[in-house]
Amino acid sequence: MFRRLSSSVARRCVAATAFAGALFLALPANAQLQTFSKQELIDYTTKNPFDRFADGRPKVPDDLLQRARELSAEDIWGTLHEKEGFRNQYADGFVIAHPDKVLVGRAFTVQFMPLRADVDDVAQAKAKEHGIKHLMNQTAIDMLQPGDVLVVDMFGKKVDGTIVGDNLFYYIMVATHKGGLVVDGSVRDLDGISEIDMPAYFRAVDPTPIGNVMLTGINVPIRIGGTTVMPGDLVVGDREGVYFIPPQFAKEVLDHADEIHIHDEWTKKKFAEGKYKSQEIYGSPSDPKLQQEYKDYLQKRLEELRKQRGEKGQGQ
Amino acid sequence: MFRRLSSSVARRCVAATAFAGALFLALPANAQLQTFSKQELIDYTTKNPFDRFADGRPKVPDDLLQRARELSAEDIWGTLHEKEGFRNQYADGFVIAHPDKVLVGRAFTVQFMPLRADVDDVAQAKAKEHGIKHLMNQTAIDMLQPGDVLVVDMFGKKVDGTIVGDNLFYYIMVATHKGGLVVDGSVRDLDGISEIDMPAYFRAVDPTPIGNVMLTGINVPIRIGGTTVMPGDLVVGDREGVYFIPPQFAKEVLDHADEIHIHDEWTKKKFAEGKYKSQEIYGSPSDPKLQQEYKDYLQKRLEELRKQRGEKGQGQ
Amino acid sequence: MFRRLSSSVARRCVAATAFAGALFLALPANAQLQTFSKQELIDYTTKNPFDRFADGRPKVPDDLLQRARELSAEDIWGTLHEKEGFRNQYADGFVIAHPDKVLVGRAFTVQFMPLRADVDDVAQAKAKEHGIKHLMNQTAIDMLQPGDVLVVDMFGKKVDGTIVGDNLFYYIMVATHKGGLVVDGSVRDLDGISEIDMPAYFRAVDPTPIGNVMLTGINVPIRIGGTTVMPGDLVVGDREGVYFIPPQFAKEVLDHADEIHIHDEWTKKKFAEGKYKSQEIYGSPSDPKLQQEYKDYLQKRLEELRKQRGEKGQGQ
Amino acid sequence: MFRRLSSSVARRCVAATAFAGALFLALPANAQLQTFSKQELIDYTTKNPFDRFADGRPKVPDDLLQRARELSAEDIWGTLHEKEGFRNQYADGFVIAHPDKVLVGRAFTVQFMPLRADVDDVAQAKAKEHGIKHLMNQTAIDMLQPGDVLVVDMFGKKVDGTIVGDNLFYYIMVATHKGGLVVDGSVRDLDGISEIDMPAYFRAVDPTPIGNVMLTGINVPIRIGGTTVMPGDLVVGDREGVYFIPPQFAKEVLDHADEIHIHDEWTKKKFAEGKYKSQEIYGSPSDPKLQQEYKDYLQKRLEELRKQRGEKGQGQ
Amino acid sequence: MFRRLSSSVARRCVAATAFAGALFLALPANAQLQTFSKQELIDYTTKNPFDRFADGRPKVPDDLLQRARELSAEDIWGTLHEKEGFRNQYADGFVIAHPDKVLVGRAFTVQFMPLRADVDDVAQAKAKEHGIKHLMNQTAIDMLQPGDVLVVDMFGKKVDGTIVGDNLFYYIMVATHKGGLVVDGSVRDLDGISEIDMPAYFRAVDPTPIGNVMLTGINVPIRIGGTTVMPGDLVVGDREGVYFIPPQFAKEVLDHADEIHIHDEWTKKKFAEGKYKSQEIYGSPSDPKLQQEYKDYLQKRLEELRKQRGEKGQGQ
Amino acid sequence: MFRRLSSSVARRCVAATAFAGALFLALPANAQLQTFSKQELIDYTTKNPFDRFADGRPKVPDDLLQRARELSAEDIWGTLHEKEGFRNQYADGFVIAHPDKVLVGRAFTVQFMPLRADVDDVAQAKAKEHGIKHLMNQTAIDMLQPGDVLVVDMFGKKVDGTIVGDNLFYYIMVATHKGGLVVDGSVRDLDGISEIDMPAYFRAVDPTPIGNVMLTGINVPIRIGGTTVMPGDLVVGDREGVYFIPPQFAKEVLDHADEIHIHDEWTKKKFAEGKYKSQEIYGSPSDPKLQQEYKDYLQKRLEELRKQRGEKGQGQ
Repeated sequence: MFRRLSSSVARRCVAATAFAGALFLALPANAQLQTFSKQELIDYTTKNPFDRFADGRPKVPDDLLQRARELSAEDIWGTLHEKEGFRNQYADGFVIAHPDKVLVGRAFTVQFMPLRADVDDVAQAKAKEHGIKHLMNQTAIDMLQPGDVLVVDMFGKKVDGTIVGDNLFYYIMVATHKGGLVVDGSVRDLDGISEIDMPAYFRAVDPTPIGNVMLTGINVPIRIGGTTVMPGDLVVGDREGVYFIPPQFAKEVLDHADEIHIHDEWTKKKFAEGKYKSQEIYGSPSDPKLQQEYKDYLQKRLEELRKQRGEKGQGQ
Repeated sequence: MFRRLSSSVARRCVAATAFAGALFLALPANAQLQTFSKQELIDYTTKNPFDRFADGRPKVPDDLLQRARELSAEDIWGTLHEKEGFRNQYADGFVIAHPDKVLVGRAFTVQFMPLRADVDDVAQAKAKEHGIKHLMNQTAIDMLQPGDVLVVDMFGKKVDGTIVGDNLFYYIMVATHKGGLVVDGSVRDLDGISEIDMPAYFRAVDPTPIGNVMLTGINVPIRIGGTTVMPGDLVVGDREGVYFIPPQFAKEVLDHADEIHIHDEWTKKKFAEGKYKSQEIYGSPSDPKLQQEYKDYLQKRLEELRKQRGEKGQGQ
Repeated sequence: MFRRLSSSVARRCVAATAFAGALFLALPANAQLQTFSKQELIDYTTKNPFDRFADGRPKVPDDLLQRARELSAEDIWGTLHEKEGFRNQYADGFVIAHPDKVLVGRAFTVQFMPLRADVDDVAQAKAKEHGIKHLMNQTAIDMLQPGDVLVVDMFGKKVDGTIVGDNLFYYIMVATHKGGLVVDGSVRDLDGISEIDMPAYFRAVDPTPIGNVMLTGINVPIRIGGTTVMPGDLVVGDREGVYFIPPQFAKEVLDHADEIHIHDEWTKKKFAEGKYKSQEIYGSPSDPKLQQEYKDYLQKRLEELRKQRGEKGQGQ
Repeated sequence: MFRRLSSSVARRCVAATAFAGALFLALPANAQLQTFSKQELIDYTTKNPFDRFADGRPKVPDDLLQRARELSAEDIWGTLHEKEGFRNQYADGFVIAHPDKVLVGRAFTVQFMPLRADVDDVAQAKAKEHGIKHLMNQTAIDMLQPGDVLVVDMFGKKVDGTIVGDNLFYYIMVATHKGGLVVDGSVRDLDGISEIDMPAYFRAVDPTPIGNVMLTGINVPIRIGGTTVMPGDLVVGDREGVYFIPPQFAKEVLDHADEIHIHDEWTKKKFAEGKYKSQEIYGSPSDPKLQQEYKDYLQKRLEELRKQRGEKGQGQ
Repeated sequence: MFRRLSSSVARRCVAATAFAGALFLALPANAQLQTFSKQELIDYTTKNPFDRFADGRPKVPDDLLQRARELSAEDIWGTLHEKEGFRNQYADGFVIAHPDKVLVGRAFTVQFMPLRADVDDVAQAKAKEHGIKHLMNQTAIDMLQPGDVLVVDMFGKKVDGTIVGDNLFYYIMVATHKGGLVVDGSVRDLDGISEIDMPAYFRAVDPTPIGNVMLTGINVPIRIGGTTVMPGDLVVGDREGVYFIPPQFAKEVLDHADEIHIHDEWTKKKFAEGKYKSQEIYGSPSDPKLQQEYKDYLQKRLEELRKQRGEKGQGQ
Repeated sequence: MFRRLSSSVARRCVAATAFAGALFLALPANAQLQTFSKQELIDYTTKNPFDRFADGRPKVPDDLLQRARELSAEDIWGTLHEKEGFRNQYADGFVIAHPDKVLVGRAFTVQFMPLRADVDDVAQAKAKEHGIKHLMNQTAIDMLQPGDVLVVDMFGKKVDGTIVGDNLFYYIMVATHKGGLVVDGSVRDLDGISEIDMPAYFRAVDPTPIGNVMLTGINVPIRIGGTTVMPGDLVVGDREGVYFIPPQFAKEVLDHADEIHIHDEWTKKKFAEGKYKSQEIYGSPSDPKLQQEYKDYLQKRLEELRKQRGEKGQGQ
């Protein structure tokens, strides 16, 4: 909830200053400690097969976001685990505000570091030169787009590491169209947040407002747990944890998941009949007849799915 | 649930003995290891602006308890953090039995220490001289008043550190009129407790009954986590943790919270319009017109609140 | 969910091979690393007063399982704590999938050890000699009977220690008639599992499939936390943890629990009247009249219970 | 090392004020939050068989302290574990500054609580009435006697919970004649402390000075880990942890330890011969001849010990 | 140190009974809960290229044990990590009694489980039939041979999980010729153990004697941390942790280590010259001349090593 | 020790490739993921009062490094705690390889992130364009200068997070003239490292070589625990932890420490006389005569110190 800042508090907190309403699709280069220019962002996400935002961030299309709402961590593991060099895309150990809601969106990344006045003074001065009155959490929050998930590296900080309370959480919900929040740090106002319909993953809760930290990067590569998150990653969170899917794998993950879901349907249907031992059905049927039955079922259901999505014959 | 004590168990547990129905508003001095006379209690809570119980414990008025039901940890932080020497009033890390119910009441404090027979024998003998058959958890529980929250320093003990099971939990609910329980220790009978409508904060759950400890103080200063709790503190718990508010700050905390809540209302209303960046509205509006709009809103809502409470013009 | 195994994955996982539908009531001796013959199982559970399965496992009768659905950890503690040499029958610290559902059933135990290829190769070869194509988690799962609880010693492993995902979890539900799962390890597909109506206790959740382990025993004595579990133990889990009750104590535990429940009823009823201090009623009434009142109540309710169960005068 | 306090720091720390050199053998009653008068101290240590200090604290004699230098935790366990109601006298989990030095002395206990200005103001005012300029860690430290071990309940606090740095540690060494320190909290200046020849047990090390706490009791009952420590307890620490031995058991513990040590000597001597299996010698010899050999050895060595100590025939 | 057992203690502890000095090279089958016959032991260690003890346990030769004294964990990792299915052979997180002494020997494994009287009574009765008065820790200890390392699965137990105190530790030192101890549990008498010249790895230290557990296997496969240990494994411990090397890899590990050690010598020698960047020398020299220099050095030193060991041309 | 990389291992590790001996004082801009040009480095350390290296890194002079060898964490705390915005300069919780050796030097910072092949491929390609064959730990190590301390943000990784083994540790010792190592990650070859005379602070030890990570920054701002470290910070480590001192405060810290050390000398000398209570001497003497005695002593010793250092009258 709203925090009336006394002067002594204001000094140690990321200040809440007025702001002249500019359009924030991209920060000018060098306005943060860790800079990442549009060209660098494009270079480092060169495999992105989709469009990009004006600032270079990959933009996984809306229809794939929609399909991603049916993913679970296991669906994604199946595809990503096979990719050499992509075994660090999953983070868990979060407190989850709405475990019954799936988290899906495009990663909008923010990095904080422990406050150090000599460094922050320089960064703030550089920001001012570019028309930003104060580099702070709201600087990043005001750049969020519909479909974004705010992903914040707050290095696990609990006290003073609260990226938002319920007011800004509400703002994010409005701005991202219920996209979501992942913070390797904390939030405040859990009572308020619990009533707002947007998925959120955080390490802890604390009544202190954000403070004693400095904002050091917006849409730069960040670390969340043991993962490296890139701006524009497809973020998917379930009851277990969060996957950060590089855009180039989004389609493959989703197509593979279709098959997994159909296999699950069929497997459980067979189990429900009560006639088979598990090994006769799962992982794959031992009996050639059952194998054929499954193949037919898969084919039929895949076609139904495609029709349902208005797709035409693009196979899998 | 009820525990049929065998003789061997009875020896190591705080015994459950019969009791001669006396009125327990205050224990005689020296009946516990850590004594705190009525005069000492008054001396050490000298700033209390309210009435007191017969034993000297501050009595935050019922109407303030009622208003406190709308507090969250953040509301309280805003006021207490400004007070030099009161930065240790918040404890968290609890298992919360009913996270959707706010905890509000007056602190009734109890202290336990690890059992040591030489010391306990003397304490029990002294208690007997004062008409108390056995110093035990029920000695304190039978002194509870409506509006009390039982706050127990069980030094984090899990096994044998269960202050109550569901029977005594039920008793406390009846005696305190759903006041509540905070224990830096454990409870038993979680299934039973989950069905009883009273907020409870504890560190762990265990099937053992209380044992291997000795009751050493009733309504003395105690430690819960990193806080010092005084008898008569206003206890407020939400989904995050528990605040122990010294009575002298209760009114200020509540009045400040009114403004916070109105500010929250207004902020979210503006955010819901979808026309503003967060920095244009929160922490305070940058546009003078919006500032005035907010001031008018605040004034109007404060007046409505006062009317609603039957107050007259006492401003803030 | 279903996992499409690439060849590289298949090598490190407990393989999912086809199976020739044999009847799995008992494994031949020596087919596992830790063998336990039918005779040994009978020898080591010699105090079992009930029937046995074909493989020697004690079979607590269905009506006692039914009655056990009203047990809580505290009810069991009261009886078992008195038994010299049975103080290690309770395990807690689990994540509980359905805390509002009681877990009741007969222990079907499985042991895993960290994979070591020289040992596993020998075990797999021995298994093959006995007609088992591959020793794996499904080998055990396909032996489950109605009323069983699958109890798995996975030595606390999280990554690669997932005994089942939602497909096999569903199979277990069907095979055991909603018996349940206790694993000192992890599960996958928590979203899927959350929707399946069977109690489950585990240490963690992970998206990886089971791997890097070897199945080393089925229906052998195992360790879960600080307990020793024997095949055929009566397993009871509530919101706190899990008790493994040796069959010889099942009847005594249940009869004692009847009294506890009646005592709870009476105690709360008296407390609800608001006329008594807790010590006048609980642990046992101090007033002889109340004592008599309770005795009468107990007698009446016990008789009602017996009638309700269709029992005739077998006392307690 | 010395800390130059700025004004802002001084406010939050236990102040370092000048002091008028009075004799500190006992604080006047009521000068602390938790008071314990001389009479109470005598009452609650009524089983003490030895002399007392002027303030009532039991004084285990110097020759027993001397003998206690040969004790280990196991020696003490053997005696205390048999005493009903004394199973909580051992604490471990400490960082030990000089693990190769045994800690022995009489407990001088001090209690701190989290700072709360309303309570501390009253306590400081009461202290001033009794001629104490400021209640602080040095108030207690200046009361230490030769042979004392300073035992401090700092409720596990690390940051700001540093009872002493190397200067005051040096003072304690001089004042107690190398008695020692046990703190359920932290110390600072570990480099300096490592060079000072006095055993010390603490939970952590931190560069902050003590602050944000209030001294609430001197020579009152305190908690260290899961133990209750009484003023005057015989404190013995080894490489494992610390035992707090009630004075009434000191002699029995030491006499029992003599036998244990002789048994150890004899056992190892026999093992060194390489002729016996361990079960033939340890716990007690199976062969009647060896039994007699041991009995004779024990008798002879006990007599030597007594002579060595100048004792005469007081047997054991 | 020696523990004088009172009757009440004796009941809960693994009893220390007299024993009729038989030759303990192997326990009869079925004398323990988890049996592993000589044939099974041979079957499950079929790849062992060396001799065996009379009970079937692989016997890595003395000269290899001698060479293994120069191994570090990294030397072993290099070889074992390449072997599919042997990635679980390393355990760490131990307290190490003598970190400056390397641990080397043949694994003698022992398994304990939480005490359960019904099971233990049967096991003890079976043991008695085979002439063993009491199954207990000393039953296993008395079977130790020179060159053995006692490896004990005590499931991480601290209190009551103390496999030995200093007397039995001394016995093990004598019996194994300073072989060593690894226990996934605790020890007692750390002061005494610290003075005895044998490496020891344990999880914790506690003054309690072993109790509340039952011995369930001798020279059976056991788990230590995340490893599976087989009787006869080559055990090597350094300052970091413990490796359990299957006998079939012992020679390869040692030969590979020779090369690593020579490479280390040469690398550091070159670095000491101060003329090269690290990448010019390490992992392998970039300059062909340096490559040749290293090859020559390696050849020369390998030959010296072989001569030194009295080997003849067996190459590597 | 040397690791013979098999092809499968090489793929997942930071490769050890040959290198063309170039001069490494500064990496070209954009050769790493997180770039920080010479100008940026100068801008963000604008308060540095000393010379700089060719790459812009502040160069605290050698004589101050020499004086810093007498600092302890407490000395530094006294000065830095007073500076608003510099309360996050201390990190602890390390394993310390040589706790009896003080760590002093200039921070040379390196950052790693979890491996992600799409990002690393781009970074490696960019590096190649600038003549760097492979970005890896040795790329940074080969840039070290005498007086440097290598400070590595490995995000706490243990397995695969080993920045060096004993060979490269030896190289660092030679290259930095025993400067030192701080890694928020692990090392390998602890046995070897223990014998090399250079201070080292790390979180853990593991036998795995570095792998599954990517080097993302050299001499950029990094996080170690809760601190922000800038290239060129004065690094000081003692038995407790590590301080990162911004160059602009180096002189003030050292001058203040001189006074602290003299105060310590004097305080202990007075305590050693045994005539004073601690409050009469410490924090500052209460008696005006003693105050004067101390002032004279301080003046005399400060002058001696200056002479000793060859300084002339620059006061303090």
